Amino acid sequence: MKSYKIALIKGDGIGPEIVDEAVKVLDAVASCSGFSLTYDELLMGGVAYDITGDPLPQETISGSLNSDAVLFGAIGGEKWDSLPREKRPESGLLRFRKELGVYANLRPAVVYDELANASSLKPEIVKGVDLMVVRELIGGIYFGEPKGRDENKGWNTMVYTKDEIVRIAHQAFKIAMTRQKRVCSIDKANVLDVSQLWRETVEEVAKEYPEVELSHMYVDNAAMQLIRDPKQFDVMLTGNIFGDILSDEASMLSGSIGLLPSASVGAKIGVYEPIHGSAPDIAGQGIANPIATIASASMMLRYALNEQEAADKVDAAIKRALSEGYRTGDLAQFDAKEVCSTSEMGSIIANYI
Amino acid sequence: MKSYKIALIKGDGIGPEIVDEAVKVLDAVASCSGFSLTYDELLMGGVAYDITGDPLPQETISGSLNSDAVLFGAIGGEKWDSLPREKRPESGLLRFRKELGVYANLRPAVVYDELANASSLKPEIVKGVDLMVVRELIGGIYFGEPKGRDENKGWNTMVYTKDEIVRIAHQAFKIAMTRQKRVCSIDKANVLDVSQLWRETVEEVAKEYPEVELSHMYVDNAAMQLIRDPKQFDVMLTGNIFGDILSDEASMLSGSIGLLPSASVGAKIGVYEPIHGSAPDIAGQGIANPIATIASASMMLRYALNEQEAADKVDAAIKRALSEGYRTGDLAQFDAKEVCSTSEMGSIIANYI
Ligand SMILES: CC(C)[C@H](C(=O)O)[C@@H](O)C(=O)O
Ligand SMILES: CC(C)[C@H](C(=O)O)[C@@H](O)C(=O)O
Repeated sequence: MKSYKIALIKGDGIGPEIVDEAVKVLDAVASCSGFSLTYDELLMGGVAYDITGDPLPQETISGSLNSDAVLFGAIGGEKWDSLPREKRPESGLLRFRKELGVYANLRPAVVYDELANASSLKPEIVKGVDLMVVRELIGGIYFGEPKGRDENKGWNTMVYTKDEIVRIAHQAFKIAMTRQKRVCSIDKANVLDVSQLWRETVEEVAKEYPEVELSHMYVDNAAMQLIRDPKQFDVMLTGNIFGDILSDEASMLSGSIGLLPSASVGAKIGVYEPIHGSAPDIAGQGIANPIATIASASMMLRYALNEQEAADKVDAAIKRALSEGYRTGDLAQFDAKEVCSTSEMGSIIANYI
Repeated sequence: MKSYKIALIKGDGIGPEIVDEAVKVLDAVASCSGFSLTYDELLMGGVAYDITGDPLPQETISGSLNSDAVLFGAIGGEKWDSLPREKRPESGLLRFRKELGVYANLRPAVVYDELANASSLKPEIVKGVDLMVVRELIGGIYFGEPKGRDENKGWNTMVYTKDEIVRIAHQAFKIAMTRQKRVCSIDKANVLDVSQLWRETVEEVAKEYPEVELSHMYVDNAAMQLIRDPKQFDVMLTGNIFGDILSDEASMLSGSIGLLPSASVGAKIGVYEPIHGSAPDIAGQGIANPIATIASASMMLRYALNEQEAADKVDAAIKRALSEGYRTGDLAQFDAKEVCSTSEMGSIIANYI
């Protein structure tokens, strides 16, 4: 029997609760799909700092590199906000992405028909939305040098090299080939030098994908178009911070940030995680929505383990739970037949496998 | 009789059409309010480049500094997109802001009750929205050094000095004092050094305004909250590029970017302009919505000329035109009784004065 080793990083806040439900579903789908999974629990974020003094212990990096894929919950919380920057949970996460080399963050925004009414946007605007934000994840202003601050000044550098742009552009075009074959590249080329290089380089890469239609849009306009008419987008290709902003905005099309998964890929080992944060305010109450994490586990099955059928089963089970009216608290007011807890939702989805 | 000198910069695309309507309304309100207006037409943008070879002729700067206020349309268009950066219309605009020293860009997003249904968001989400984005306009990554590019690399610097943050924060708190007394400062302090200085400095300035409630939000979350629950915001204080993105997004709450004005202030002479662009695709057709520009003229009356009553009259006339069902094409499908052209809309509003 095939066996895969999954690095589990539960993290802080609601992280442990939601990852546990994803494991429940993974075990269910493995047992009826002819493969087995073993898990290696690793520490990152505030919990890692509390135990080891470091938000990203070396063991977590090596353990992840020794796995077939990483399933990650969420990190962070006010408790650690006043630590020096390099000790903060977020620093651990950024270093983790960089160490693994996962430069491509894929963030689908898909609206489940059953929940078209859950968005703050009108149902006719969001129904049928199916877009993918391809965000560069280990460059740009998140990592650019020089950076720093003193008493009277703070500075960060938004920098991209041509190579960095080329490789993320290839990811976007390749994904577009499996979808509607349209890439919209987002920049601020009317103001930023780095965006001019971005735009020219994306144009060059596009030549290798003659079937894909490429367009460009300024980031301010994109923030507007995403809510004016989101169905115009197929693949949105962006740098690190623009992608951070736009993908969070896009998540609202689906009605709850508790629904959307993400994959960070481009290196040997990929990281699969919900796009939402650690939500310390509701941690430990058993009310968090585990669907984003379960959907991330499905992306992991599909992209990291190449277990397409198992991934299809998970996706179908999520859809079934939603269409039968099961809802966690965040979506309770949208056609809920039954409001359930985090672990009930996990069990329902696992049972439908 | 009091007399004011207005620098008129019509610009490119729909700029001339919409500024002409604002002038029509300004003349109407002046003649019944006991002051007179004279206009000094100045060149900026693509049209300035075509005529003088420079998107910002020196005359435009000196003429503006010799006026009581600047009323500006819009600049830019594909025609000039392939020029070297310093010749492009946008460069002229950025230099203009910098030369005048207008560091505070005020962008209200108000939803007219009559048009609560025009937004792509649900009416219950947007009805009653009344927020103000206070965007720093002449610093940050738009102007930071070092910046540049070569064949293989592009870079820009997001930099703020303490003084720059202090003065824009004061603007935000002062405005909040005339409103609901709440400031939400937007940054990315969990990642950016410059945002940490921003956050600390805003905290310090806040101490001088004990009546104002200050909160902080990460920019990605703000992009989400703006559409999840926009009524939570009163004043949003942000840097240059975050403000660019968020204010365009916020404009969609109102249903059309053709409705929203802006004021750029902080120096001797202020600049008043619609937040939308030059829309070359519809230029010259007489279908552009002049309301954003007319509302900008109203802000000019209020803030630059201190003619409150005249400003109130203009605002009331805009509201009346909308509530009587007059709509330009962009809003034709929202309870329009009569669809009218750019100049008809201008005349209707002027008549209601
Ligand atoms: C927690 C934070 C550092 C992170 C980011 O900005 O990348 C988060 O917002 C995300 O998008 O994964
Ligand atoms: C045209 C462009 C340079 C400008 C900006 O980014 O500031 C515009 O988007 C705006 O917001 O006024």
